[in-house]
Formats: sequence, C-alpha cells, structure tokens
Amino acid sequence: MVSLADIRGAEERIRDHVLATPLVYSPTFSAMIGARVFLKLENLQKAGSFKVRGAMNTILSQNASIGSKGVIAASAGNHAQGVAVAAQLAGIAATIVMPESVSISKEEATRGYGAEVILRGSSLDESLSYAHERAAEGYTFIHPYDDPAVIAGQGTIALEIFEKLPDPDLIVVPVGGGGLISGIATVAKALRPSVRVVGVQTAACPSAVAARREGAPVRVEAAHSIADGILVNTLGSLPFAIMERYVDDVVTVSEDQIAMAMVLLLERKKVLAEGAGAVPLAALLNSGLEIPQDGTVVLVISGGNVDSPLLGRIIRKGMLKKGRIVGISVVVDDTPGTLARLLEVIAGNRGNILHIHHERFERDLPVQVIRVELEIETRSHAHIEEILNALRDHGYAAEVQ
Amino acid sequence: MVSLADIRGAEERIRDHVLATPLVYSPTFSAMIGARVFLKLENLQKAGSFKVRGAMNTILSQNASIGSKGVIAASAGNHAQGVAVAAQLAGIAATIVMPESVSISKEEATRGYGAEVILRGSSLDESLSYAHERAAEGYTFIHPYDDPAVIAGQGTIALEIFEKLPDPDLIVVPVGGGGLISGIATVAKALRPSVRVVGVQTAACPSAVAARREGAPVRVEAAHSIADGILVNTLGSLPFAIMERYVDDVVTVSEDQIAMAMVLLLERKKVLAEGAGAVPLAALLNSGLEIPQDGTVVLVISGGNVDSPLLGRIIRKGMLKKGRIVGISVVVDDTPGTLARLLEVIAGNRGNILHIHHERFERDLPVQVIRVELEIETRSHAHIEEILNALRDHGYAAEVQ
Repeated sequence: MVSLADIRGAEERIRDHVLATPLVYSPTFSAMIGARVFLKLENLQKAGSFKVRGAMNTILSQNASIGSKGVIAASAGNHAQGVAVAAQLAGIAATIVMPESVSISKEEATRGYGAEVILRGSSLDESLSYAHERAAEGYTFIHPYDDPAVIAGQGTIALEIFEKLPDPDLIVVPVGGGGLISGIATVAKALRPSVRVVGVQTAACPSAVAARREGAPVRVEAAHSIADGILVNTLGSLPFAIMERYVDDVVTVSEDQIAMAMVLLLERKKVLAEGAGAVPLAALLNSGLEIPQDGTVVLVISGGNVDSPLLGRIIRKGMLKKGRIVGISVVVDDTPGTLARLLEVIAGNRGNILHIHHERFERDLPVQVIRVELEIETRSHAHIEEILNALRDHGYAAEVQ
Repeated sequence: MVSLADIRGAEERIRDHVLATPLVYSPTFSAMIGARVFLKLENLQKAGSFKVRGAMNTILSQNASIGSKGVIAASAGNHAQGVAVAAQLAGIAATIVMPESVSISKEEATRGYGAEVILRGSSLDESLSYAHERAAEGYTFIHPYDDPAVIAGQGTIALEIFEKLPDPDLIVVPVGGGGLISGIATVAKALRPSVRVVGVQTAACPSAVAARREGAPVRVEAAHSIADGILVNTLGSLPFAIMERYVDDVVTVSEDQIAMAMVLLLERKKVLAEGAGAVPLAALLNSGLEIPQDGTVVLVISGGNVDSPLLGRIIRKGMLKKGRIVGISVVVDDTPGTLARLLEVIAGNRGNILHIHHERFERDLPVQVIRVELEIETRSHAHIEEILNALRDHGYAAEVQ
C-alpha cells in the first residue's frame, strides 16, 4: 500500500518541478446541484494533465538507479507527455512507445517535450509489450498507474486540495487504471475520514466497476470513447487494493453525458477539459450521485489534452443538443428568388444562417426542384420550432436533419 | 482620480461576492520569451470576465440611492453579463439594453443571470443613448468604464496579483474604454513604482493609442475584430487621465496575432480566452514589447466569453496556419478506383483525411474529370509539402486551397 507519509514525501520531492494547480469555485455548478462545487484544475498542470506528478516522483525516487538510457514508457496520451516532461525536468533521457494509430497532436506534443518517440504496435497493449522488451536493455520502465511511487505522486493533488479546503464532503475522481484515485483517496481518508471519495468511469470501459463486482481486477472490452484517457481494460492490482479500502463508490457515465460536461465546462467556466477530465462533472449532473446538500464537493478535472478536430466536433455536438444550432433541409422550386425568400423567412424569425448548401442534380429529386441544406444558429429548441412553423406557414417543406 | 485606498475599499466591499481568480505560471510561455510568465485568469471570474468587479463595487457603493427599478446599462458583451450578475448578487433589478445585432449566446447569458434584456439600436451607441434616456425614469445607470467606482472595482485584480506575486516587472493589460488598466496601474505603481504597465489594443480600434498621441480622447473608427470586448471608439476621460499618469506604453496587435494567441492559450494552457482576453499574450509574442529578461511578467487574461461558432472558426484558422490541417483540391479522371488510389497515396504519407468533397458536373471542367476536395490533418507545413510531392510523383495535380 501507499501511506500518507509516502505522499508527503512525494510532495517534498516534486514540489519544485510541478505546479500547484488552482482550486476554483463554480457558482454555476453549485447552483445546479445545491452544494458548493470546487474544481481542481489539473488541466493547467505541466503537459496538461496530472500525469507529470507520478512520473516525476518515480524518476526522483529512483534517480540513483536510472542508467544513461533513461526511462521508457508506453502510452497513447497523457502518460507519454507526463513522462517526457518529468524526464526533461530531471535532465534524463526518455523514450516513449506509442501505438501507430496515435493522434498526430499527441505524438508531436511528446516529441516537443524532448522525448524520443517510437511508433510501434496496433494497440496500446502491443506498444506496452514492446516497451517492456526494450526496458531489458537498460531503460527504467515507468508504469502509468500500478506502482506505489506513481500513486504517491498523484496523491499530492489531494494534499493541495486539503491545504485550501480542509473540509470537503465529497471528492469525485476519474478512474482509468486507478492510480489517480488511489493516491487521492489515501490522503483524503487519512485527513478526513468522513469524506466520500467516488470514482467515475465511462460506461464504454467499466474496468473498476467490474473489478469491484468480481473481487479482483478483470479485463473488460473497451468501446470507443471520447474519454480516451481512462480507457484502460484492466484496473491496476495495487490501485484495486487501495480502492477496496478507501473508495466509497464507482459510477459510470455515458458518452453523451461526457460530451455535454465538456461543453458546460468550456462555456460556463472557460475550462478546457478532455473527456476523461470531464467525467466527474458528468457524474455530478447525471449519475444519481448522493450529493451532500449545502456540503462541499471537489471535482478533479484531471487533464485538458483534447485534439483540436475532436474539440470542434464536441462543441458542435453540444450546440446541436442544446438547440443552439440546427441543420434543416428544404426542397424548393428551382426558380429565381426562391432562395432569397426562404432566407428572408428565417431572418425574420431571428435565425442566424451559418452555412448554406444548395445542391442541384440530386438523384432522388425531379429536375424542377432543388434541395437547400441550411445550418442555422438558434436560441433554443423552442426557437427552432418557431422557425420551422414559420417556414411551413410560408409553404416550405422543411425537415430537421 | 482613484486612489489605492479607494481600491482597497472596493476589495473590502466586493470580496464576498466575486471570486479571487487564480494566478498561474506558464512554463511554455516563459520558455518562449525568456522571462517568468504568469496568467491572471479573469476568464474564470463570475460571468466569465472581470466586469463583475466594477459593477459590484458601483452597486454596493451606491446601494442607498438605488431605487426599486434598479440599475440599467447598455452593452453587447461582458459589461451586460457583469452588471446582471452583480445586480443578482446584490438582490436588485437590472435592465440591460443590447444592440439588435447582439449574439444570441450573449443575450441568452444576460437573461440567464436574471436581467431584463431590451434589444434596441443598430449600434452600441444607439443602445447607450436609449439606456441614458430610460435612466431618467429612475434607473441607476452603470457606466462600463468612465466611473471611479467601476475603476476601483477593476483595480482589485491588481491587489490579488500583488498578494501572490509582490515583485512583477511588467504587467500587460487589454485596453478598450480603459477602466481595467486604470485600476490595475493605480495599484501597481503605488505598490511597486518600478513596475512597467503596458496596455494592448487591437489595431482595428486603437482608441488609446490615438488619445495618447492627440493628448485627449478622440473618436477612432473601429473595423471588425475578434477582440470585440475592446472595440470602444473613444477612450474614457477618467481612464485617459489615469493612464497618462501611470501607464508606460500602449501597443497594438493584429487580428491574426490575436487568433493565434487564443489558439495557443487553449492548446498549450487549456485556457479559453476571448479575443480581448488574449491580446496581452499576442503583444508579448509579437509586438516588440521590451521584455525584462529573467524578470516576471503578468498577463491579465480579462475574459473568456467566446461564442461557440466563433471558437470553432478560430480553432480551424489556427490549425491551418500551423500546418495542422490543409485543404487540397485534386482534379482526377472519373474512372473507377481513381479516388481509392488517391487516398492511398495520402494515407501512405500519414495524412489523416478529415473530410472529402467529391463534385461532379462542375461548370469549368470537362465531363471526363472530377474535382476532389480534401481536408487532411497534418503534422506541419513540411509534412504538407511531403504529401503534395507524393501526390505529384503519382501524377496527381494537387493544389492547396
């Protein structure tokens, strides 16, 4: 296991290398749930996630035994960047094995922190076994979660939370391999036994839920998820043991709930969280978590590394869902002035046209008519209905796409 | 003028109602310029910008004289939301006049904070004169910047900065009407006379630059800008006087520089800043600001209220500029298998295809050929060149769009 003293030791060790991230109050989320909600912003950490804490503690604890080849790790995401930055800060070499399908921006970011990147394997499992192989050549392998030094590093987050806020009633933490929540729960239960610590997973990969049900870590299949940072098929053994002791519950959230939580964090709090970083908010708003009325809740926003194209799609999805944009398709006569009249009806109802696509020669339409596809910025679902009714009143057959 | 004592009084008054926002260190921006760079994150403030500070101080200072109709203000943006939230916190009514062209999201956000919104006028000037008219009926008018209580409220930001960081060498602040920088400069020069305070404007609306040149506030024409929060045609009179005394320099930045600064803040620091909030970073990286080597720089990130559609466009623009996406157009023979072979060449060079548009029946092409438009995720400008060369080697006439 890992002790409070280990975590205090880690804090001492890494203090000068990592950032003490802000803990900010959110009036909006507080009002939404009837408790005081604070966000611990690990997305503002070096390399954009908490991972540098565990990596830094591992490197500094083992400094004497790390050879000239430095450290090696396998990761498709935040662990890669965390290890790369920690190695750079410690002045040692880092080699990171990433799956061949890794996103360009994550690969570039990892190289940007000075690591050597090797693309190997069609899955993270294959990258991992290659990294293990290479480790035998004299590299020090850094595990992403199943290691006491890594867990102690992540636990320093909780020391920072308690320094600012000594009496939280509920702490909500993302769970992938389990390293983050193990460190946090160890501190939390030592300093305030009455606090509840709840883990959150995506329903696409409920490895901790399965482990707790089966009484041991078991492999689950992972579906696609926008919370790629917590897509770990098998919970770590050491995290499992710590979680059995200190974690009160583990809940799951859906992909839609995660996307909406990301949009809410961005729009209401100007915070860019990645999918894994947004699951605590998704759980708070959707999962039937027992909320301490008028109590104090801390959400650990674990990271903010989102690829820009994905971010664009998520913003769009959130806007569609809230009725802030709508795509409609209208079939109109192919005569001069028709399009202008159509746009007038929409403008008259204060719809803001973002995009028009106007297609002739479609296979399924008679030649006298054309289909116009419009994307309109709207105010709400009710506003969309108003616009659709106005179009119908003017004789246009409009359909939401 | 406004004194340090006025600003300390404001802090006392508003402390329980506004957030003490975080001041975070940025290793990335520090490394880019060779000084320690801190960001004061007013985008995390209530209602997403610093405006609530000044509005709150004005309301609480005048509480006794505010009638049952409450306060009135005119704004197309952050001042609207700041006044609405401050009034809500103080338990009084707020009426906000907004131009008819105001963005849906800003109108909705203002209503969401409990204010009555009146859409009136085709420009902010027209909304303002209407608000002044209505004020005569018994509303208390709250000015966005040309008022000592407002300036004192904004100045509390600097007290928070100095509490955490007593020895900054340079503070960089966005300038629209001048209220924010006036409050900050007053505190900064009182507590540390050697500090430099520099204002930043968009080149699209250099009202403070013009005022300093002419020796008095003068009206400038404003072009379109993504920094809409600082599009103020005429600098305030009181801010002008304070700035003449305490502000060392005012510089301008271009629209492209602002957009790139927004993208950098989002990608490297996971911070959502609006255009006006990003101008200090744009100036730091581009304007030839005198940077104190190994010194300490504070950038005031004044707000984060960006409309989602605009944010999507800015992310896209940033990616295009950095060579992280490219649009290319290829004319190919209209025969089976051609498209598949084209995509194979791109995939073989590790380009990730985001979007394909495949158009027949184009007016300017012979019927045997078709134009394919592709959007590809790439790694850099050099990577784009590699892909283009590979396409040419395979006989495709590819053009960047």
